[in-house]
Amino acid sequence: MFEAHFQSFEDKAERAASGPRVAALRTELARRGLTGFIVPRSDRHQNEYVPACEQRLAWLTGFTGSAGVAIVLMQRAVLFVDGRYTLQVRDQVDTSIFAIEHLIEMPPDRWIGENLTADDRLGYDPWLHTVEALERLEKACAGVGAKLIPVEPDLVDAIWTDRPAPPLGAVKLHDPRFAGEAASEKLARIRAELAKQRADALVVSDPHAVAWTFNIRGADVAHTPLPLAFAIVPQADRPSLYIEGRKLSNEVRDRLAAIVDVCEPSDFARALEELGHQQKSVRLDQGTAAEALARLITSHGGKVSRGACPIAVMKAVKNELEIAGARAAHLRDGAAVTRFLAWFDQEAPRGKLTEIDAVAALESFRRDTGLLKDISFPTIAAAGPDGAIVHYRVTTKSNRAIAPGELFLIDSGGQYEDGTTDVTRTVAVGEPTAEMRDRFTRVLKGHIAIARAVFPEGTTGAQLDSFARQFLWVQGLDFDHGTGHGVGSYLSVHEGPARISKLGTTALKPGMILSNEPGYYKAGAYGIRIENLVLVVRASAVAGAEKPLNAFETLTLAPIDRRLIVAEMLTLEETAWLDAYHARVFATLAPSLDTETRAWLGAASRPLRGS
Amino acid sequence: MFEAHFQSFEDKAERAASGPRVAALRTELARRGLTGFIVPRSDRHQNEYVPACEQRLAWLTGFTGSAGVAIVLMQRAVLFVDGRYTLQVRDQVDTSIFAIEHLIEMPPDRWIGENLTADDRLGYDPWLHTVEALERLEKACAGVGAKLIPVEPDLVDAIWTDRPAPPLGAVKLHDPRFAGEAASEKLARIRAELAKQRADALVVSDPHAVAWTFNIRGADVAHTPLPLAFAIVPQADRPSLYIEGRKLSNEVRDRLAAIVDVCEPSDFARALEELGHQQKSVRLDQGTAAEALARLITSHGGKVSRGACPIAVMKAVKNELEIAGARAAHLRDGAAVTRFLAWFDQEAPRGKLTEIDAVAALESFRRDTGLLKDISFPTIAAAGPDGAIVHYRVTTKSNRAIAPGELFLIDSGGQYEDGTTDVTRTVAVGEPTAEMRDRFTRVLKGHIAIARAVFPEGTTGAQLDSFARQFLWVQGLDFDHGTGHGVGSYLSVHEGPARISKLGTTALKPGMILSNEPGYYKAGAYGIRIENLVLVVRASAVAGAEKPLNAFETLTLAPIDRRLIVAEMLTLEETAWLDAYHARVFATLAPSLDTETRAWLGAASRPLRGS
Repeated sequence: MFEAHFQSFEDKAERAASGPRVAALRTELARRGLTGFIVPRSDRHQNEYVPACEQRLAWLTGFTGSAGVAIVLMQRAVLFVDGRYTLQVRDQVDTSIFAIEHLIEMPPDRWIGENLTADDRLGYDPWLHTVEALERLEKACAGVGAKLIPVEPDLVDAIWTDRPAPPLGAVKLHDPRFAGEAASEKLARIRAELAKQRADALVVSDPHAVAWTFNIRGADVAHTPLPLAFAIVPQADRPSLYIEGRKLSNEVRDRLAAIVDVCEPSDFARALEELGHQQKSVRLDQGTAAEALARLITSHGGKVSRGACPIAVMKAVKNELEIAGARAAHLRDGAAVTRFLAWFDQEAPRGKLTEIDAVAALESFRRDTGLLKDISFPTIAAAGPDGAIVHYRVTTKSNRAIAPGELFLIDSGGQYEDGTTDVTRTVAVGEPTAEMRDRFTRVLKGHIAIARAVFPEGTTGAQLDSFARQFLWVQGLDFDHGTGHGVGSYLSVHEGPARISKLGTTALKPGMILSNEPGYYKAGAYGIRIENLVLVVRASAVAGAEKPLNAFETLTLAPIDRRLIVAEMLTLEETAWLDAYHARVFATLAPSLDTETRAWLGAASRPLRGS
Repeated sequence: MFEAHFQSFEDKAERAASGPRVAALRTELARRGLTGFIVPRSDRHQNEYVPACEQRLAWLTGFTGSAGVAIVLMQRAVLFVDGRYTLQVRDQVDTSIFAIEHLIEMPPDRWIGENLTADDRLGYDPWLHTVEALERLEKACAGVGAKLIPVEPDLVDAIWTDRPAPPLGAVKLHDPRFAGEAASEKLARIRAELAKQRADALVVSDPHAVAWTFNIRGADVAHTPLPLAFAIVPQADRPSLYIEGRKLSNEVRDRLAAIVDVCEPSDFARALEELGHQQKSVRLDQGTAAEALARLITSHGGKVSRGACPIAVMKAVKNELEIAGARAAHLRDGAAVTRFLAWFDQEAPRGKLTEIDAVAALESFRRDTGLLKDISFPTIAAAGPDGAIVHYRVTTKSNRAIAPGELFLIDSGGQYEDGTTDVTRTVAVGEPTAEMRDRFTRVLKGHIAIARAVFPEGTTGAQLDSFARQFLWVQGLDFDHGTGHGVGSYLSVHEGPARISKLGTTALKPGMILSNEPGYYKAGAYGIRIENLVLVVRASAVAGAEKPLNAFETLTLAPIDRRLIVAEMLTLEETAWLDAYHARVFATLAPSLDTETRAWLGAASRPLRGS
């Protein structure tokens, strides 16, 4: 009936291939006088989505999770994964080859301290580890007298005979109507910031930052329209962009050449060496810059200053056209999500739908907008107990029929040229239990507390996070993830540096877009999450106010399941917020909905007060 | 009428003496081939209250504030103070000798980077700077090629001819009925923690930690009953206590000798060298350990591991007898504070009282308990606009008559052998304005939000801090200090590591005592603060809870001024909290009050509901 184009439901498990691959790696180790090699999940840019040609960890071990690292020694090998993946890893990985360790409780540096000896010579690819990560490994090796040895090119690449070619996704210019600021203006702001920080140049190692700066988009990885590329922005001279020429049409190249020297990626290392020779002080982004970059600069006489890339905050604060784009994208996306919810409400009670059906239907409704470029991440469609797995991703093997009496959680988003969306709704199929309704209402109260928050300039996400949890806390409940993450503008759906979480130490500034997504998860039973994207805005003026105040404007437009709300648990203010939100959802979406969906939304969005 | 014994109202200003002292310091610099010297406010233990013999900054500059540092060069000198002291410093310091800089906006390391050159040789006393602080200075000097040179003994001491002798406050054994745990048991716990951290020994540089560990109290500094002392606790051997022998009676010495080698302070440096010679791995507290300690260990072959002193959390978590003592101290102290409030309410409207009168009266009521050992800090008694100065301390010069129509803020505490108290009340004199009542009610709502908070095990103070601010935020208001600090047990009234503030990253554990003190300050007009001490307790069990829950029990017992509350601004739950609190205050204190005060408290504590 419906088809998913942007998401596969394959259950990848290549455990059989691990044996010969690990054996080949050991032969290579012996040949080079090494006793071990570290294989992280990361690529050269610390990307969230890694291109196929850099999925070394998956190729070697079979493990396809989003975080992990392997250490292969001559006699044994170990794979580190975190708590999310303890079940998945047993399915995908041959545990007679790889011992499994917990990435947080027994991180690689600790494991090295307990398992390596002074005879060990551990190789690593300096392009895949950040400076900070490498310092931890170095300290661990030094502690036991082992040697940590950079190896280029990567040792896995040397034995990976059918390695896919690097992606050559076509680069497009990001429409100025959506970008809202010329690259030349962005470069001027970056240079001013470098002057303030007394840096001679900035190395841009995060391809999201490259895409934002030069107003380009790409197609090199899944779900995020970024081109794999590096850039160097000197404080004084012209910037350089290091990008595979075959990704550029003549038009794109010409437009880029007006503002930046377009160079081949193979020139990048030499350019870093040159910064070193000139004894420049070079800013590196500590979150994404590989140790190889720092090494190329410092070993040739340059100075590296590590810190946050100044582009990160600039990119996070959306300009007026980006905000207008986000509103348009949310209207379009909200209509598609509402169409899905209406369809689901009709179909699900019959008991014939599966999680995959839901994913395909939702994607199809989004594609019907005619403007969907991609989904912004693989949709999480989780029925009943699957909802309690926070990072659940349905496969043909895990696919579950959606049964009456269950909660269904669907977390999804779209990539449109004018904006990136991310929305979660949890809906009742059949009759929910009293406990489900109590928990849903507590999550909703937390969601509303964030949505209604008013806070002075300079307030961080860490200072707001508990507002979302307080109603769960009093019942001895909580949720084990942050309340919100930043969201890009036709870029990554997970964007730093601001977030609403214990760790969110960046001040929230007007123009930032974040998610507001508290949840509750009962293992083996159900999951609840209510997610809207919110825009940080100046709050309306208050008489006697001593500080500028900010607040959130909710961007996402889709009804919240009234059947799961215990109305008496809401305060007057909370009820007023929900009713006003639903009234806005209806008024805004109704003109773009078909008659049937409009009628459904009318009922789904009627006020609680007076009902 | 009343007299203060523990607080002086002198207005210290010795600016005249600075000229010759700075000149003498420069002569000494020249003699030693130095071009400058750093004089911090701190002593060898980074104490909050510095003994007279270590008040080098005040002696040299005249500045008596609680934070600051001076740098004296041959041709110029600069004094760094923070925003609290920008007015005071102009009164106390000769600005033709010292340029004044803002400690936060232009910290010494930044100033060094902009003002020193490659010819400079800057001296410092390695006993007065923590390792971390020194690293910042070193980096700054290295940046301009200047040299940073340790100088022992301190250069100021060399020219300070009438320097007071070190204090010789008598050391007393802390009564086991109040300590609640034998020193031998505490030492066993510390050793177990060292084993876990794989450290061979702990250097205890914080005298509060020394006092707690060995169950002793002293009288070397103002307001905190600590003995100046260092200790070394090896994982295996007997501990050593480095303390001036003249502070010890024979009985105290004998009792100490049963568990610890009692040594002279002059042996301490040699003991650190010896740890180095033995190549021990030594734990140093990063907050209080001077660079000299690290240097003595590492320069002789030892290894230093910096981190939090394990004693800090042990000390912060009070045991059952300490908690019982705190309850008893709060009952006693609450009765004295209530007597004061009743007296004040009678006297103040007549318009004859001054701030100093109030301080003296309150101290006198506390002394009447017969158990007051000291006040826990200089009382802040602030009428009208003085209340907006968060760290106001009245002097004969600043002393203000308390006038009708003003708010009066009084923040004070007592040191009793069974516990340390800290309480702030803000009371109306005459008729308060509508704005004062609105602001007071918002502060109260924040206070109640903390008092009623329920939070899972592992929650930090940073996660709760915003609860206290939310009702101010919506009006564009806030307060510029943390919501709460830890409090010791007959020790410092400001105790780490837990606190309720943006920076409070320590988990709150049952047994910790903290202050709950939101406020609001209108510059030039008035100040409001409502402070109770709270004890972290296990919350009562909730059906279906998935996590152990903690909550606060309010320890402080004193009425909150009902005349300043706008009852309609409180929710039912907030009113219920206040009424229950007042009922408990009355029921608990009434038996210890005289008839008149009891009658006053009866009226002051009657319920809002039904009023």
